[in-house]
Amino acid sequence: MNGAEALVRTLLAGGVDTCFANPGTSEMHFVAALDRFPAMRCVLGLFEGVVTGAADGYARMAEKPAATLLHLGPGLANGLANLHNARRAMTPMVNVVGDHATHHRIHDAPLASDVIGVATPFSHWVRMGESADTISADGAAAIAAALEPPGRIATLVLPADTAWTDPKDPTIHAVPPVPARPAVDAAKIADAVRRIRAGGASVGLMLNGAAMRAGPLDLAGRIKAATGCRIFAPTSNGRTERGAGRFAVERVPYVVDMALETLKDVRTLILVGARAPVAFFAYPGKPSVVTPPDCEIVPLADLHEDLTGTLEALVEALGAGRTAPPLQSFAPPPLPGAYDAITPEGLAAAVAALLPEGAIVVDEGITGGRRFMPGTVAARPHDWLNLTGGAIGDGLPMAVGAAIARPDRPVVVLQADGSAMYTNQGLWTMAREGLNVTVVLLNNRSYATLVGELANVGAKNAGPTALGMFSLDRPAIDWCQMARSMGVEAVRPETMGDFARAFVEGTSGKGPLLIDVPI
Amino acid sequence: MNGAEALVRTLLAGGVDTCFANPGTSEMHFVAALDRFPAMRCVLGLFEGVVTGAADGYARMAEKPAATLLHLGPGLANGLANLHNARRAMTPMVNVVGDHATHHRIHDAPLASDVIGVATPFSHWVRMGESADTISADGAAAIAAALEPPGRIATLVLPADTAWTDPKDPTIHAVPPVPARPAVDAAKIADAVRRIRAGGASVGLMLNGAAMRAGPLDLAGRIKAATGCRIFAPTSNGRTERGAGRFAVERVPYVVDMALETLKDVRTLILVGARAPVAFFAYPGKPSVVTPPDCEIVPLADLHEDLTGTLEALVEALGAGRTAPPLQSFAPPPLPGAYDAITPEGLAAAVAALLPEGAIVVDEGITGGRRFMPGTVAARPHDWLNLTGGAIGDGLPMAVGAAIARPDRPVVVLQADGSAMYTNQGLWTMAREGLNVTVVLLNNRSYATLVGELANVGAKNAGPTALGMFSLDRPAIDWCQMARSMGVEAVRPETMGDFARAFVEGTSGKGPLLIDVPI
Repeated sequence: MNGAEALVRTLLAGGVDTCFANPGTSEMHFVAALDRFPAMRCVLGLFEGVVTGAADGYARMAEKPAATLLHLGPGLANGLANLHNARRAMTPMVNVVGDHATHHRIHDAPLASDVIGVATPFSHWVRMGESADTISADGAAAIAAALEPPGRIATLVLPADTAWTDPKDPTIHAVPPVPARPAVDAAKIADAVRRIRAGGASVGLMLNGAAMRAGPLDLAGRIKAATGCRIFAPTSNGRTERGAGRFAVERVPYVVDMALETLKDVRTLILVGARAPVAFFAYPGKPSVVTPPDCEIVPLADLHEDLTGTLEALVEALGAGRTAPPLQSFAPPPLPGAYDAITPEGLAAAVAALLPEGAIVVDEGITGGRRFMPGTVAARPHDWLNLTGGAIGDGLPMAVGAAIARPDRPVVVLQADGSAMYTNQGLWTMAREGLNVTVVLLNNRSYATLVGELANVGAKNAGPTALGMFSLDRPAIDWCQMARSMGVEAVRPETMGDFARAFVEGTSGKGPLLIDVPI
Repeated sequence: MNGAEALVRTLLAGGVDTCFANPGTSEMHFVAALDRFPAMRCVLGLFEGVVTGAADGYARMAEKPAATLLHLGPGLANGLANLHNARRAMTPMVNVVGDHATHHRIHDAPLASDVIGVATPFSHWVRMGESADTISADGAAAIAAALEPPGRIATLVLPADTAWTDPKDPTIHAVPPVPARPAVDAAKIADAVRRIRAGGASVGLMLNGAAMRAGPLDLAGRIKAATGCRIFAPTSNGRTERGAGRFAVERVPYVVDMALETLKDVRTLILVGARAPVAFFAYPGKPSVVTPPDCEIVPLADLHEDLTGTLEALVEALGAGRTAPPLQSFAPPPLPGAYDAITPEGLAAAVAALLPEGAIVVDEGITGGRRFMPGTVAARPHDWLNLTGGAIGDGLPMAVGAAIARPDRPVVVLQADGSAMYTNQGLWTMAREGLNVTVVLLNNRSYATLVGELANVGAKNAGPTALGMFSLDRPAIDWCQMARSMGVEAVRPETMGDFARAFVEGTSGKGPLLIDVPI
């Protein structure tokens, strides 16, 4: 047994049984070891952004980390943007990054780089696996680090000689104990209860992370029903259980003026696993903080603390246990007429009406996608995965990972065209693995967000050079050809009826389909 | 005039007039400023790896830096792999990376990250542009840093408020003086001369960087002709002037055993702008150093020193000034028959025979590309740009940049399929800008290098899981469809005659063409 095999066995023993990979020469022993362990599912991505984004989507749905296998500093670098998104989603992940053999380092070979330095800005935990003798302990520590609440990015560097050398002691280390989510202090609960009772609708509870599942949301709904307080969530959340039968939160809008309007009557904002809401970007003359100046921010439960327990304690103290929460009913907008032209409103209505029960929606719709959340709140129950860190190129990869985590559930990606280009290689993995993914490609042939943002930052009278930087129509990208080139079926609907038929076909479980929708 | 405009004016004043860009919200003022300066050519890439790779190819051919415009830490992260390659090619580059407004930092908004930390592993010079009042001086310092021999990566972070605020003093700073390449000490020259005279064919001169142009190579050829010493270059070089009428160096092969064989008779290796050759990767039981154990390594001129002057001094001291260098004659292999089947040998012969004078060859052929260098040494004179850092995905982007730097010269990309997938978005920019690029897509439907590397590292009896990680044929990627989806014409030749016709058509200057070649 060499170090690579010891690490694979450690991962499996620690419950990590899925590895998204783009290996190179320095990872060959790890790849060879995989042959001996069919329990480890290996999924190839043809670019590292696909690999890390898939691990993000996988963990959001599997509720446990996947491993990634990446090739030295530059391979890790290619995956960093989606590590950033995963970090913002509080996704657990174990990255295994191959590196040159330790004795080869002094030669500064062409592919050598400061791998630890590359990993650090987007990892919570980083370690160099200096020896085969310690690599199993390192791997177990990496899993523990990833599992630590609320979920963290662990990056373990695996030098080639650590992989190819036999450890002296073949012990496979178990994952060390992971701290449980700590309970919130009773005094803080009591303080929050007083504030909620006193403030009514001027009090908001801001949820996030683990509080965005059906159970804790139900508790939040009872608190609202009993006290009149409001329940908010940030603009982007790693995973939200929503739709019919669930309690729907108020999401803070992306656009600063809309966020200010949403929060203008809030005088007390109590944080339950969330941070105080801020503007995504700063703009000249606009505030960074979107709560009113006189709004008091009350941190109740930190991201890593017991959010469900906190809400349970609030429910009990407020006597809201027997109050029925205001759950969403199934009431999608009417399906547009079959011969209607395709419009953004029609698309949002059709998706809301046709979304299958249990669907997983990956939302990288950006400008074109903002209409979809309001309508789908009354759709059949589903999970919604947002782009949490704003680093575009997470949509197709996340869909790959979510579909591998939950092959029993249809995955729908609301995908902006500009963002899709970043990691279009994700389509190939969908075809290769026959994944149950429907890509709704929202094709506006532009970086439409930026046209608006140019005006938002006060840059006036944009000329052809500036506007040319946002236009993707010279040449227009033929997304059907693009998808087919990678083995994914594709259609371009002409009418709302065409779209509806394609969407039903796509979500019926026959493999990936891309629907190229002009908007 | 705001800080963004001050920076654009500083770049133009410093001779940086081409900007490869993928901007976002925080870069809107910079984009707006571009409208007022048509002298700054802006080229959009739909992924940041295209942007940095294009800036690499541009500077290799333009002999001056381009600017890049990137969006915060994750946008920079997406461009790091090609910064790695550029760093290894000693390419000068000025990266402008937008960031959140300085007053927005404390809020840790979703897209916030440690931009300086992201930049550091792959930049020689990094600075945060804290204020509009100093941004022109910062920009000038960045250009100076990039120009410092032998060529460096400078990264300037531009917070949004630095961009949108008016500087108190509108002075546009000139680029501070850049140190010239220092001359090599006369005693070191004399020592090298003694060694060359004494050693004959057991002495090698190892060139790189600025020594790989026709002029200094001619000098090296004279030294060889006069003394019998050998002239080597590393496996990968940023830019080599080669072909008919030039002196051809011996390149150290990538494969360790072949490198050992090439260098086995060398007892003294004198370094002129190069490092001592080492194995690209370490392998169990194989040496990292590929020179013989008793070979003395003699550093003569460092990378940043005056390499042409060093060779001139050697020529003079050796009395080789009137010795004719053994220049390469035009003697390509015969063109294969028009109805011959396509073979790797045939392709290499056809490219060597048909390569137009003045062509720029971008070589990311990897396994499939190794045959092309030997044959083309006797082709018409051309420039050859290697993948210098081993981070795949530099080929299509470098071709974009080279074609923009030299629109008068045809660009030919020898492009492996696996590597092409990393930055396939480069095809779109080729179409958008109508670039004179012929992509010879060497389509082996696999990561063929890794099949060999698995054996090289001694990982025996690879099974289906391991081999599956190197196979790109489930599904096969249709590269013609892929290219056309982004507006690039594409053909799939059946015979060598088809290939030859397509290659001639592609290099005739009518815009980009992809030739999908099965190998």
